[in-house]
Amino acid sequence: MDRLRIGVIGLGWFGEIHCETIIGVPNLELAALCTRQPDRLAAMGAKFGVAKTYADYNDMLADPEIDAVSICTMWDQHVGPAVAALKAGKHVFLEKPIASTVEDARTIIEASKGARGILFVGHIVRFNPRYRMAKQAIDTGKIGKIVALSSRRNIPAAWTPTILNKIGPIVGDAIHDTDIMLWFTGEKIVSAYAQTISVRNLKHPDIGQTMYRFESGATATLETVWCMPEKTPFDIDERMSIIGTEGIIHVQDTFPNLGIVSSDKLHSPDTTYWPEFNGVRGGALRDEFSYFANCALAGETPVMGVPTDAAAALEATLAAEESARTGNVIRIGQG
Amino acid sequence: MDRLRIGVIGLGWFGEIHCETIIGVPNLELAALCTRQPDRLAAMGAKFGVAKTYADYNDMLADPEIDAVSICTMWDQHVGPAVAALKAGKHVFLEKPIASTVEDARTIIEASKGARGILFVGHIVRFNPRYRMAKQAIDTGKIGKIVALSSRRNIPAAWTPTILNKIGPIVGDAIHDTDIMLWFTGEKIVSAYAQTISVRNLKHPDIGQTMYRFESGATATLETVWCMPEKTPFDIDERMSIIGTEGIIHVQDTFPNLGIVSSDKLHSPDTTYWPEFNGVRGGALRDEFSYFANCALAGETPVMGVPTDAAAALEATLAAEESARTGNVIRIGQG
Amino acid sequence: MDRLRIGVIGLGWFGEIHCETIIGVPNLELAALCTRQPDRLAAMGAKFGVAKTYADYNDMLADPEIDAVSICTMWDQHVGPAVAALKAGKHVFLEKPIASTVEDARTIIEASKGARGILFVGHIVRFNPRYRMAKQAIDTGKIGKIVALSSRRNIPAAWTPTILNKIGPIVGDAIHDTDIMLWFTGEKIVSAYAQTISVRNLKHPDIGQTMYRFESGATATLETVWCMPEKTPFDIDERMSIIGTEGIIHVQDTFPNLGIVSSDKLHSPDTTYWPEFNGVRGGALRDEFSYFANCALAGETPVMGVPTDAAAALEATLAAEESARTGNVIRIGQG
Amino acid sequence: MDRLRIGVIGLGWFGEIHCETIIGVPNLELAALCTRQPDRLAAMGAKFGVAKTYADYNDMLADPEIDAVSICTMWDQHVGPAVAALKAGKHVFLEKPIASTVEDARTIIEASKGARGILFVGHIVRFNPRYRMAKQAIDTGKIGKIVALSSRRNIPAAWTPTILNKIGPIVGDAIHDTDIMLWFTGEKIVSAYAQTISVRNLKHPDIGQTMYRFESGATATLETVWCMPEKTPFDIDERMSIIGTEGIIHVQDTFPNLGIVSSDKLHSPDTTYWPEFNGVRGGALRDEFSYFANCALAGETPVMGVPTDAAAALEATLAAEESARTGNVIRIGQG
Repeated sequence: MDRLRIGVIGLGWFGEIHCETIIGVPNLELAALCTRQPDRLAAMGAKFGVAKTYADYNDMLADPEIDAVSICTMWDQHVGPAVAALKAGKHVFLEKPIASTVEDARTIIEASKGARGILFVGHIVRFNPRYRMAKQAIDTGKIGKIVALSSRRNIPAAWTPTILNKIGPIVGDAIHDTDIMLWFTGEKIVSAYAQTISVRNLKHPDIGQTMYRFESGATATLETVWCMPEKTPFDIDERMSIIGTEGIIHVQDTFPNLGIVSSDKLHSPDTTYWPEFNGVRGGALRDEFSYFANCALAGETPVMGVPTDAAAALEATLAAEESARTGNVIRIGQG
Repeated sequence: MDRLRIGVIGLGWFGEIHCETIIGVPNLELAALCTRQPDRLAAMGAKFGVAKTYADYNDMLADPEIDAVSICTMWDQHVGPAVAALKAGKHVFLEKPIASTVEDARTIIEASKGARGILFVGHIVRFNPRYRMAKQAIDTGKIGKIVALSSRRNIPAAWTPTILNKIGPIVGDAIHDTDIMLWFTGEKIVSAYAQTISVRNLKHPDIGQTMYRFESGATATLETVWCMPEKTPFDIDERMSIIGTEGIIHVQDTFPNLGIVSSDKLHSPDTTYWPEFNGVRGGALRDEFSYFANCALAGETPVMGVPTDAAAALEATLAAEESARTGNVIRIGQG
Repeated sequence: MDRLRIGVIGLGWFGEIHCETIIGVPNLELAALCTRQPDRLAAMGAKFGVAKTYADYNDMLADPEIDAVSICTMWDQHVGPAVAALKAGKHVFLEKPIASTVEDARTIIEASKGARGILFVGHIVRFNPRYRMAKQAIDTGKIGKIVALSSRRNIPAAWTPTILNKIGPIVGDAIHDTDIMLWFTGEKIVSAYAQTISVRNLKHPDIGQTMYRFESGATATLETVWCMPEKTPFDIDERMSIIGTEGIIHVQDTFPNLGIVSSDKLHSPDTTYWPEFNGVRGGALRDEFSYFANCALAGETPVMGVPTDAAAALEATLAAEESARTGNVIRIGQG
Repeated sequence: MDRLRIGVIGLGWFGEIHCETIIGVPNLELAALCTRQPDRLAAMGAKFGVAKTYADYNDMLADPEIDAVSICTMWDQHVGPAVAALKAGKHVFLEKPIASTVEDARTIIEASKGARGILFVGHIVRFNPRYRMAKQAIDTGKIGKIVALSSRRNIPAAWTPTILNKIGPIVGDAIHDTDIMLWFTGEKIVSAYAQTISVRNLKHPDIGQTMYRFESGATATLETVWCMPEKTPFDIDERMSIIGTEGIIHVQDTFPNLGIVSSDKLHSPDTTYWPEFNGVRGGALRDEFSYFANCALAGETPVMGVPTDAAAALEATLAAEESARTGNVIRIGQG
């Protein structure tokens, strides 16, 4: 087999982006689609020329000509399709966060043990070449031992009114930087303190600021603002500084790599994560799918997207959210 | 009188910079110098052509031909000269932090009440045109109501081994951003949480990360790293983002305004705070001294460098340091 | 005398900025105003509380209580007031370009020889601390010998419809960078080639691109765009790279030092040249006036704003304009 | 067939990078290697596990199990292998510049007419997502009509002592920006003027500055410096501004996207063109090879890497070099 036949479960905006990306990966074949919304299912089937469409993921999983699935359902609806797909022997590309509770994450990880397919969790930022090259520099000792980190991951207000009724910015976005910080330090997080503020009175607060302590004493801050104003140039204002005993790494924002001043505004579009050219997505998301496909086809266990790493990032961000709710510093992993 | 005759008390590296700045301000006359170190006193007297030199500030204060003093002694030695100068009827330019304890700050403020001279505390960042223009934009409503802030103020390791045995980065430097945040929001800080880490095992930790909550619920993080490595381009890596309900302001770092690549390194020197040309300092420090001189000569009460503002910034940073020591969130101003 | 009483001749937008700057310089007194437009004269007299107002600069120059003048008339109306002021023994601050022809520049320089007052030409960019610090680095050998330079000085279209009927972008703005390049290299320019393009069909083209050859063989390009679109963040998009045999200096743009995202756009206001706070201008323009006042009061010949330097910059930019008109490479100073 | 078996001809530093990239493209198989240097051939064969190695490209081309070749010989040795490969029915990926003379370019293009394989010229910058997205914005009218452009493409001195004895910076590197400008404007270049300067007295000058005029009157400058000093942070200092009647696009440099401050220097490595992770290259070079493979496998004529476009860029840069040699403005395409 040199092509992986993949079905996408969950066809919201990001499920569609998955599809637009999969069609650009030579050893992937977009073979099936699944959503409970019939109109959306028909539209996506037509758009991508995919004949196999399902309202129930169990029907898709029963098809022996499907080798793999990508799961883009809401974060609190991951357990069902992920466990079923693993039981059905499929390779699983599961969007982050791995689940909405630490218990659910464990259930999914449990199901992956002994499964015939691989379980890969989509922590895409590890496929951003800037972070990946930073990791290489850290691993070769260029900055000594990490003592402090700070990050930002801010997005426009226009993108978030719907999502903020489902997930907040700390678990939704700071989880990326949490995962990267765990990767860079190779350490555990021992405590979390966070503050949030609600700007638009949606279900979750618009802004989160988080502080972690790592087991070596290293300290970190993380900023996630989900309400940047209309005229912000940024699609993502993304930065990280990693301070070591011998050096510093600055992963800067994607701005001002490309600034387009039109009659409307200055816009600095994302060119890194899933840039679209002629209807096909490239960037880090394609690299992530390629990595997944290559591991699955070669029968190799991935060293990126590792489920236990994803669970650790989830645990830390959930602790930060608890801190924001209670006003207390939350200790992690001490019971 | 259209020139203010000023004496400088404390002639460490920053006292010397004060002198280099004063000589460039038309309505200031550098008239006297004071330090307990005889060699330094002689050297500075010769460098600046100042005949009146004193080992004891009381002798300087007794001179009726001195109108004003700038006080650059260590932060825990402010009370003596500041109170004495105010009692002697001199105008006082007092370096930040106003004092090393809230009590000492109150003693100094008490002494200023009814004094003939003005008391001005050197919170220089308010004279950085970028922050000052940001304040104008905030006051004219351009970004709505402030809901979150984040700042950085990092300096090279080579600058700090001595100072870190006297003061830490939060009270020493985050106090600048604390003052600016208080100025921008017009609010009080109600709690502080901070984490520090010691890299070089000096008396104070090299790195501080601080989180504040403001009375409106606005949240803020502040980073202060006093151990940037040798090859960092920055003299000061200084940034602030101010997130409002209607807009955002980014006060960026001074880099890369001027980058000088020599055979040694890429260096981005400070051109804002006290750039030196032909032995004379300009920039924000000169603007600050001009403001002080103009107020003193005109008999006007300053609206910048206000001692009670300085005391509020001190209180918040001391609370942050207490938080870092104890691991607790510290409530402010509730007793 | 420790204050220079100065009158401003020409009260267009920049004459007004001169006034707003002069009132913030302690050893300058804004003592008189002159314009042929009666309404403007009355309005400016009222705004600045200046009683001495003149329709004819000769009347101002006849006043023995005026020590100095700043001349802000259009560039082709410099000779009259400049020569008359020098003959009247006044110190002269003359805006750039020194004149509209090389002959006129020579006439003015001739008049300054043996004059009682100093003649200073307002090449403000030499007072931008970034260029000034770059000059220091060059003079101390940090980048070796200069072999190439490139610059940009672009401004918004909204600022230029009127001015473009009086002067073009090469003589109007590239003259700044020309002067700086002459200052940095210490060389003469031997040839100029330029291309322009007219976007809005005004009297002068909106855009100029210029290339110089210096006598050592060093090569330079200069970009001046006077039609940046409405949503550009820049007040001035200003940059220069200076490439030496041993190093490089990058003088970057003023963006993104301060970025203000309001409901309208992202704006990066100028904080360097003439920032205004409470009705008074600071920045490089104030430094320039301070330098002028200090030289005049001390009876020292300025080493900045030197008229022959200004004439050399004028000659090079006029040659570039001739090149753009004719399509030929223009040799300079060879006859 | 769903995999293209490709051989690489020319195994200098860039031939090796081609190999490192090809092995990461699923529908390419690195099947053969060719160089006249036996040691290098053996080493590369061993490194990539490729059994088919050739000293003479004709032997490689005789192999029916080779579907395609990439040609990385020196630019003046393109005609031989390119024409032979096309005659042998292979698909050809030819590095830029297409050839070293306009006549050679025509010979190669002639050979491609009626050939069974496609001829693709490796103008990689079109696969940089920032330029590609800029092209999209231009095509959708976001900036109106292009009236001026300026570009920079500067690299460190340490990279260039060998190459500067083979090719100069204008044909070697400004050809990238020339191709992009031709792509963005959709116009022809009608004249070129250029100045060069030799810093290290190698065969070709280290620095080139070029000015083009386009048929619509649009004007452009291009800077190429091949001698940036050791401590420059840049791998490539790459920028372009595209000024339109309704907007502007700024394609900024790759710095400071990732800045690594180690004990040696601040380094901003390229993360865009061919970043290497675990021995495999990604970035624009992989995208370029994927595009080539997809076109070849699908039997589609490429719309990127079009040989006549490559010839037009070559002609303009050769005209610029002639201008630099003669001091004259060179007209293009007028007979």
